[in-house]
Parts: sequence; C-alpha cells; structure tokens
Amino acid sequence: MNQKLARAARELDYATPCLLIDVDRVEANFQALRAAMPDTAIYYAMKANPAPEIMERVASLGSSFDCASVPEIEMALATGIDASRISFGNTIKKERDIAQAFRLGVPLFAFDSLSELEKIARAAPGAKVFCRILTDGAGAEWPLSRKFGCVPSMAVDLLRKAVALGVVPWGVSFHVGSQQKNVEAWDGAIAEAAAIFTTLEADGIRLGLVNMGGGFPTAYLEDVPAAEAYGQAIHASLIRHFGNRLPQTIIEPGRGLVGDCGLLVSEVVLVAEKGDADGRPWVFLDVGKFGGLAETMDEAIRYRITTDRQGPERRVVIAGPTCDSADVLYEKSDYRLPSDLTAGDRVQIHGTGAYTTTYASVAFNGFAPLACRCV
Amino acid sequence: MNQKLARAARELDYATPCLLIDVDRVEANFQALRAAMPDTAIYYAMKANPAPEIMERVASLGSSFDCASVPEIEMALATGIDASRISFGNTIKKERDIAQAFRLGVPLFAFDSLSELEKIARAAPGAKVFCRILTDGAGAEWPLSRKFGCVPSMAVDLLRKAVALGVVPWGVSFHVGSQQKNVEAWDGAIAEAAAIFTTLEADGIRLGLVNMGGGFPTAYLEDVPAAEAYGQAIHASLIRHFGNRLPQTIIEPGRGLVGDCGLLVSEVVLVAEKGDADGRPWVFLDVGKFGGLAETMDEAIRYRITTDRQGPERRVVIAGPTCDSADVLYEKSDYRLPSDLTAGDRVQIHGTGAYTTTYASVAFNGFAPLACRCV
Repeated sequence: MNQKLARAARELDYATPCLLIDVDRVEANFQALRAAMPDTAIYYAMKANPAPEIMERVASLGSSFDCASVPEIEMALATGIDASRISFGNTIKKERDIAQAFRLGVPLFAFDSLSELEKIARAAPGAKVFCRILTDGAGAEWPLSRKFGCVPSMAVDLLRKAVALGVVPWGVSFHVGSQQKNVEAWDGAIAEAAAIFTTLEADGIRLGLVNMGGGFPTAYLEDVPAAEAYGQAIHASLIRHFGNRLPQTIIEPGRGLVGDCGLLVSEVVLVAEKGDADGRPWVFLDVGKFGGLAETMDEAIRYRITTDRQGPERRVVIAGPTCDSADVLYEKSDYRLPSDLTAGDRVQIHGTGAYTTTYASVAFNGFAPLACRCV
Repeated sequence: MNQKLARAARELDYATPCLLIDVDRVEANFQALRAAMPDTAIYYAMKANPAPEIMERVASLGSSFDCASVPEIEMALATGIDASRISFGNTIKKERDIAQAFRLGVPLFAFDSLSELEKIARAAPGAKVFCRILTDGAGAEWPLSRKFGCVPSMAVDLLRKAVALGVVPWGVSFHVGSQQKNVEAWDGAIAEAAAIFTTLEADGIRLGLVNMGGGFPTAYLEDVPAAEAYGQAIHASLIRHFGNRLPQTIIEPGRGLVGDCGLLVSEVVLVAEKGDADGRPWVFLDVGKFGGLAETMDEAIRYRITTDRQGPERRVVIAGPTCDSADVLYEKSDYRLPSDLTAGDRVQIHGTGAYTTTYASVAFNGFAPLACRCV
C-alpha cells in the first residue's frame, strides 16, 4: 500500500473517477531498474502514461523515450530533452510521420517489414534502424499477438538490405509480452538476436544494439519479481549468448515504471441484486472498460480493489457505468467486496498508473475521459 | 453503396481517419422506422452517435431521446426539445445525476433493482419509472450480458414497491440485443411484459408503457430485414399478448438509425509480409480498436471494407496503428483485400455511423480521437 496515494485518496475533494499519480514512486521504480541494469539505457514507453509530470521526472533522471507517434515525440521534446534520446518505436508509421520525426532530429526507427524499411529509407535517409523479431510471449498476462515482429531469417535479409537502401542497420528488438512474470523470458529472444549479429557479421555488417523492449510487470493481485531478478537473468542471458562482446542494450519499460504509481478513486454508483440464477450482486462503479480500464478486456489485467467498509466479504460481479453490455470488468474472476458496500461509497483501484488515462474513450455515453492528478 | 458518402470520400481533402456522416440517410431510416411502427414513439439512443447534426435532425423529425448520462441529457436539450421528450434510460445512475435530470424536467427513469428505485424515489419524487427485465439476447451480434435487467418476478415486486416509495410505476422495458437479426426476437419479452401488466392489474396497478428497447440492426457484411418486417412482427406480438388493450410503446433505436449513415475513410499505413507461418500479409490502417472501432472486439462487428484498387484479392489480417498487440481488427475472420493495396492508399469502412466516434480513446499512443464530418 502506497501511503501517500492512500492519504491523497482519503482527502480527495474532486469528482470521481480520478487517477492519482505518485511521481516519486515513478522515480523509485526508475532508479531500481537502472540499478538492476546499469549498462542498459532506459527508454520510457510513454504510451503507458504521458502525464507531463511523469515525463518531466523521468527526463530529469536521464531517461530516453520510446515514442509511438509524432504527437508523442512532440510531448517528449516538450520536456526539454534532445531528440537524440528518442526512438520512434512503432513499426507502423506513415511515411510523412517518419519524415517529420527525422526533421525533428529523431535518430532511431523501428521496422519489421520490407515496406516499412523502404519508407524509412525514403523519409529518413541515413537513420539508424532496428528490426523487431517475433517472440511468443509465453508467461505474459496481456495478450501478445503476432502483430509485431518478423521471423529472424527475414530480419537478417532486411538488415542486409538496409545498407543498400541507405539506412544504418543498427540492431534487433523484441518484446517478450507485457506484464511478463517469468524473468527468464528474455533468454530465447536474446539468443535469436545474438544469432542475427553473428550471421550479419559474416557479411561485414556489425550491429550495435539489442532493444530488449518492455514487459517488466507491476504488482496487481500478486507479487512480481523485483527489478533485480530481471536484471540478473537478462545479464546472464547476454553473457551466455554474446560472451565478452556485449552489445549496447536498451529497455522500454512502461507498465513496470508507472503501473504501481497510480491509484484510481471511483464511486460506487449502484449495488444491485437482480434475482438472476448466479446470485452474486452487481457492483457498478463510475469507471469501466470505456473510461480507462480497457485492460480488463477478457479480464486480462486484474486490479486490486479496496474500500473502507469492514463488513464480511461476498462474491460480486463488477461493472462499469455505461449502457454497453460489454462494459463488465470482472464476472469470471472471483472478486469479493464487503457486503455493506453501498452506492456513494468510494473504492480504490490499485496499480492503475499504466494504460488507463489515454485509453479512456473521449465521450462514450457522455462521460468525460478519466481525470488525472499528480500528488 | 451510399453514393453521397462515396463521393464525399473521394473528394475528402482532410486528414484521415475521418468519419463521414450522411444525415439525410438518418432521416430516411427514421421515417422508415416510423412508417413501420406508426403507433410507437421513437427515442433515439443518442449514445450511438451524438453528433449535433444528427441530434438536430432527429429532433426536428419529432424524435424523443434515450439518454445515458447528464451530459447526454444536456446535449439533447441543446437541440431545443422539451425535457418531456427525454428518458434517462441508464439503469446505473448516481443519485445526484438523477436529481439533476429531474431538475431539468426529465420525467422518465429506468431501473432494474431496489437500490436504484430507492435512489429515484429520493431524488425524483413523483417521476415515472420503468423496470428493465432480463432477456437472453439470442440472435444478436453484439454480446448481451446479464448486466441489465432483473428477473420478471422481481420486476413485479419492485413496481409494486414504487407506489409506496412515491414514484409512478409506469412500465416495463427490455432489450433483445444489439444488431438483432431475428425479427421474432421481441416476442418472448413482450409476452413477459404482458404477464407483468396482468399481475399488477390484479393489485390495482395499471401500467402504461412497454419500452421495447433497441436492437434494430444495420447492414454490415450481410443484408438485414427491413424495418417493415420488424414492425409487422412486433405488432403481431403486441396483439398476441396484449389483445385489444395495447400499451403505449416506445423503441430506442441507435445503430438501426445511424449505423449505415457513416463511412469511415482510413489510410493504409503499412502492408507487411513478415514471414510467419500463416502467410497472410498484415494490412495496418490508421484507425483501429482504440481509434473508434471498439466494436471489432472479438470480431463481433464485421464491417465491410472497400478500396479503389482492382488487383486480385488475397486473404489478409487487418490491424490498427497503435503499439498495442490487442489492436487487431480481423484475424480470425476471412477478410480479403486487393493484392496491389499499398501504404498511402485509402480504404472505406462502411456502416460505421454507430458506436465509433465516442468510443475512440482520448489520446492512446498520441493519436487524436476520430474526426467526424457531416456531408
């Protein structure tokens, strides 16, 4: 329990739903990751939470930024950092957006297909590029699809082609899946990356960078391994596969930096018993799937929810306030809340610092997007 | 194919993604529904698309409004209609929002639980209330959960209790599931409603209203029955179960009024072949699940997608532009697009007038919410 957030939640005299952010906790997480992986550059995956206070804090600590779009690049530059600290990490970019990023000074671009590589070569000649390879995401809680990454043999071909196209083949990236709780999950992908380095070296192409992506978890209902455990496992893998010729490495934490820095305060709108067979009462909150809790999709992310009520707990279904029948947060999962919980009470939804504010719908059912306050 | 929208899409000199709306088509749909069900009042479920031009057009045609929140009520009033034409149809309302709606003159409130009924009685004494009953939603394409409605026996108890609480037990509502393609789907719920009317009449309570909800479909990949077929089936059910004592009826169309009035113009950001086993190329658009196409969740709603390219078609996976691996539109469904489709081309996504603009995330990955233009 974060005491500062708990106190701020008690004192909140502001309309709910409201996300409270503890920026000092972001700093502590940043320092822990840096201590765990001192030779690895941190590129904050700002899509997790681009609140200006968070952006400025991590910038002041020396973070670089993993950006998904030109507006994100502009927000990162607004912190005052140099563009050299930005990676345009989205493998899906409009050619004019690549050109705009390049004009702004962004030096580093992701790709995972020939077509994207050609776009970068046209719009950002001379830029450094890295190729994302497919990984399976086993052990991750948020589903990792085959949306990003190509097979390693194609990565080799494309990185060779980069030279001819006039961009600099700079490295390989991968993502082991968000909320990855297996500290060994990076090993297979690091092995693949090392194999690509070796193959290309035979062609005279010396890659420099392994971008090990994000995936660092935050504690929701269960504890997760500490940053140190990830650092040790990843370092051991790098030694195992690269020997004494370690590449430059970067990581792109998002959830792992900001997840546990957020506490969402919500009001109970209704506790309804409706006589259906299952018998569980429905607890309706003033925030739901379309108000910032999109990651409850398929109940993938299960947040801890607490209240000040002391009554005996009972099994409940938890849902959001919209008229959309899909706006149910937890029905399959076994959630329990005090039986004296009632409309007008507040609940705290923990670990909501990542992937909440910007996911909120702009106005569905007339509800405003999720408010956010740094405490 | 809507020629006006097709022409507007060709002439669009505006950044994509952009939703084009044909308000005349909204009017035609409204008139068709009114002709099909001349004795039934239409309450537009404005959450489907609250664009001011749509709101004003249907208001001018005599529509009433089904509102989900106080901001929606304020938008409806902004068209100049009288508050007597508004129903606060969300069964999940904060007590202060009920009070605010009542102050604004809203006469009619939905509930499906004792707790909600008590809130209405406190905050809107003397108001008319209707109780939503559970239905199974068989035949609907958008999932209908058990989120809304109570069992009919509970509805009877609550409507009895309404009298003692000082509100007017006015009727029964139900929803047969969104995008309901079975015109007979209303029959079972109308029978339940009639049974509730009969039971309460024995207690001296004479209900007046059957709110038959929404569910009227729009044509996506397949044709749907015409409004007339729904009108005939529903009228036959009303006669069958209510005989010659027909209740006042209302319907709450959303998708059925505005779905086919929208054409979303999107740009192809990337066509990627990534060497994975499946072999289908990935077509990435500049709009996805977080940019307005939330109803592609689990591929529930399958939009028709067209391009001006003439090449032979091939099977593709279609995905959105964000860095979220869940932002895939169609992977299980069999979508085919021309093999010469390339980055920078435009595609048209049809039938996107409902549940798109307001579902868009406020800024996920830095992308702006979906723009909307009435043509």
